[in-house]
Formats: sequence, C-alpha cells, structure tokens
Amino acid sequence: MTETRKPTVLAFDVFGTVVDWRSSISAESGLFLAKIGQQHIDAGQFTDDWRKKYLSGMAAYAKSGRDFTILDVLHREMLDETLRDKGIDPATLDPALLQDWTFAWRRLKPWPDSVEGLTRLKRRFPIVTLSNGNIALMLEMARCGGLPWDAIMGAEVTRAYKPDPRAYLGTAEVLGLAADELCLVAAHHSDLTAARRCGLKTAFIARPMEYGGRPAPDAKLAQDWEWSAGSLTELADQLGC
Amino acid sequence: MTETRKPTVLAFDVFGTVVDWRSSISAESGLFLAKIGQQHIDAGQFTDDWRKKYLSGMAAYAKSGRDFTILDVLHREMLDETLRDKGIDPATLDPALLQDWTFAWRRLKPWPDSVEGLTRLKRRFPIVTLSNGNIALMLEMARCGGLPWDAIMGAEVTRAYKPDPRAYLGTAEVLGLAADELCLVAAHHSDLTAARRCGLKTAFIARPMEYGGRPAPDAKLAQDWEWSAGSLTELADQLGC
Repeated sequence: MTETRKPTVLAFDVFGTVVDWRSSISAESGLFLAKIGQQHIDAGQFTDDWRKKYLSGMAAYAKSGRDFTILDVLHREMLDETLRDKGIDPATLDPALLQDWTFAWRRLKPWPDSVEGLTRLKRRFPIVTLSNGNIALMLEMARCGGLPWDAIMGAEVTRAYKPDPRAYLGTAEVLGLAADELCLVAAHHSDLTAARRCGLKTAFIARPMEYGGRPAPDAKLAQDWEWSAGSLTELADQLGC
Repeated sequence: MTETRKPTVLAFDVFGTVVDWRSSISAESGLFLAKIGQQHIDAGQFTDDWRKKYLSGMAAYAKSGRDFTILDVLHREMLDETLRDKGIDPATLDPALLQDWTFAWRRLKPWPDSVEGLTRLKRRFPIVTLSNGNIALMLEMARCGGLPWDAIMGAEVTRAYKPDPRAYLGTAEVLGLAADELCLVAAHHSDLTAARRCGLKTAFIARPMEYGGRPAPDAKLAQDWEWSAGSLTELADQLGC
C-alpha cells in the first residue's frame, strides 16, 4: 500500500461500526415482544426485519421528496410496519411502550474495542459522528456507552441522509474541510463507496458479527480502501495513535 | 429560594461564560497588530471594539433578512470593519494573517474553573453548547481547551442566532425536550432574559472580569434566575454534582 496522507478529521458511521445494533435490539425486542404477549416471535428475525426497512428506507429517502424527518421518528414508523408485517396492529399497543422500544436504538452497546479505540484516535484526530442518527439519539447513546465524540454531526446537521452526497459533503463543509481532508470510518462498503465518490478518504472496519455471522448485504461492494482494520484499536495502531 | 425542579439538559453560552474572550483576543491581537506594524494601537481597546460589533450585529441579525452565515465569516467581516475604523485597509493585508487572526476566536482560553466545573456537571447532566459559535469553531475551541461537551449545538444547528427565540426553542426541540427541561447557563443577563422568555430554565454565572473589570453592557437586565453562581464549580455544587 502506498503511504496515504492522513486525514484532518475522522467521521464515523455508528450503527454497526461503533455499536452492535443486532445484539442490543434483539435483546430489547425479546423483552418487548414478551411484554405484548408475542414471545413466540423470534427476536433476532424481528430485529433483522426492522433493520432491513431502515436499509431500504435510507436508499430511497433522497428520491422520496419527503421533508427531512429525524431517525427517531423513522425508527418508530419502521417498528410499526415491522409489527404489522407480523400481524400485530401497533394502534392496539401502549404508545409509551412503543416509544421506549423505538428508543432501544439510543441504547445500543459499543463493540468491545470501540471506547478504547475512539479514545486513542481522539488524542490525535477530532472524532465526529457521520451517522444517520439524530442528535438526541446519538447524544443518549454516547452517554450510555461512553463514546467520547468531539461533535455529533451527520444527518440532522446536513439535513440529508447517507448515502445522499450532501450528507458527506455537507459534513466536510461544516468542518471547513476539503472532502479529502475528511475520512469516513465505516463497517459498510456501501457507505464507504458513497463517501469515496464524494472525494472523502475511507477506512473500513470489519465487523463480521454485525449480522450475527452472516454476510453483510453490501459485501460485493468491497474495494481497496485507504485503511482497513479489524477493530477501532487496530485503526488507531495504523494511524499512529 | 423555593426548590426548582432540576433541568434534564444543561446548555451553555460559551463566549464569556466558559471561556475568557477578552484576555485571549487581546493577547493575540497584540501580536497581530505588531505584525502589521500597528503596535501603537491598544490591543484591549481593539478587542472591545471588535466584540462590540458582534454584540450589535447579533441583536440586529434576525431583522436583517440575511441568510444564515456562520460566525467564523461574521468574525472576519467584523475584524475588517474594526481595522477600517482604525484607518487600516484590510485589503492591503495578507489574507492568511487575517484568517489566522479571525480564528483567534477558536483558541479562547477557558476560565480557571470551567474544565473542572463542566466535568462535574457532565456526570449528572448532558452538557451541550448553545452558542452563536459555529460547529468547527466550537470543536477547535473544545479540543484546545479540553471542554468535554456531549454535543455541540447552537446557532449552526438551529440556523438562528441568539437572542432569536428560534435559537433557544430549536435547541430544545432537537433534544426532544420541553423548553423548561432545558437550562441555559450564561454569564449574560441579556441571553438569560431571552431564554426565560422562551420558557427555558436559567443559571447565571458571574464573570466580573469578562470586560476587564468594567460593568457588563447588560448589567441592568439582572433578574432573579433559578440558579446563580460565581463559577461553574459552584453551579456543580448547587446542582448536587
């Protein structure tokens, strides 16, 4: 690998890259399904179905013409749809329970290397979120998990959802950076592909357990990214932090 | 004082409340004035004049109809005006020097109690900025001074400058809070007055040296705020942190 000039700021995808959404949401959904008397539904499958709505929803968002709507609201809509797909009418359930279930996405647990890796990377680089999560969601998650962000940025600041180019370029602009001074750190080839198209630098973090050990839906988009590591601590090693 | 229900989140004014703009800008302006051969100009007076343009500029901003423009840009415009007032044409100066001088506002030093006070308050409350400073400015200042913000919010997130009500109410909305769940912490009665009109809780921090020992321009707006302290560590005491 030829030596790549280091970025000025590191911007992180969060769901899957920094936190383990599948274990956290499965565990919480198991409890909520039991509370509503639906413990026969597989919580892992329920979680995958909920996440699938997110992935397809985000890809379609820019074309939908819908006004910017925060992810907390979209997560709730997607929960309602997931429930309906299982034959459960969300209108029959306690709204406070549905809100709490939705906010499980605010309580996702970091991967074991995340806090140490971010802490080390932060010594040398400003570390910011470039996530589709809204500010209140990211703030609560950071406090729950001890994620030491310098700033919470991403969709709600740029008013655009990844993979819309405005999400990446808008973040660089707010930071006062040229695109190639910003590096996206992400576990998803699809996200990195969109970032690279905008001129950002890219760092891939392998998270083989993101989908419970099954292949990621975007595995075919793999490229030779500027950096590639098995954890955030390994990325810190590579960047000399 | 009757017991006031504690807020959910603390939002901080920054210039003057958390950092000492006058000492920092005076010291840097002294160096820059010397660099351009104008060392006969009093750096403290220059600083006060620059800040005065900010205070009047912000009060007029909402009525101006101007599109939202980040504070880094406004600071530069105000520097140019301050130079012109002294008979110096900024067009004759090195643009890189003027940029660096403007960015002195990104390098303001915290008051001696700020880092300890914020660190203690953060244990119990999310702490966010509710400043007119833009995100890149606040981010660099936080890293220079070790300010442990949970999130950088304020003008660039709400696209409105204090004392515009949208700056206060928009911050509460992004956090998913009712106005009275948010408390503005500020050294300025004018800022607290505007926040209280919007329904926020208010905490006053006395910073008698903000104007080098002279009275603040908004001293006559003093009210009985929910909390009032001589430092951020004293506020931490009062809030049980």
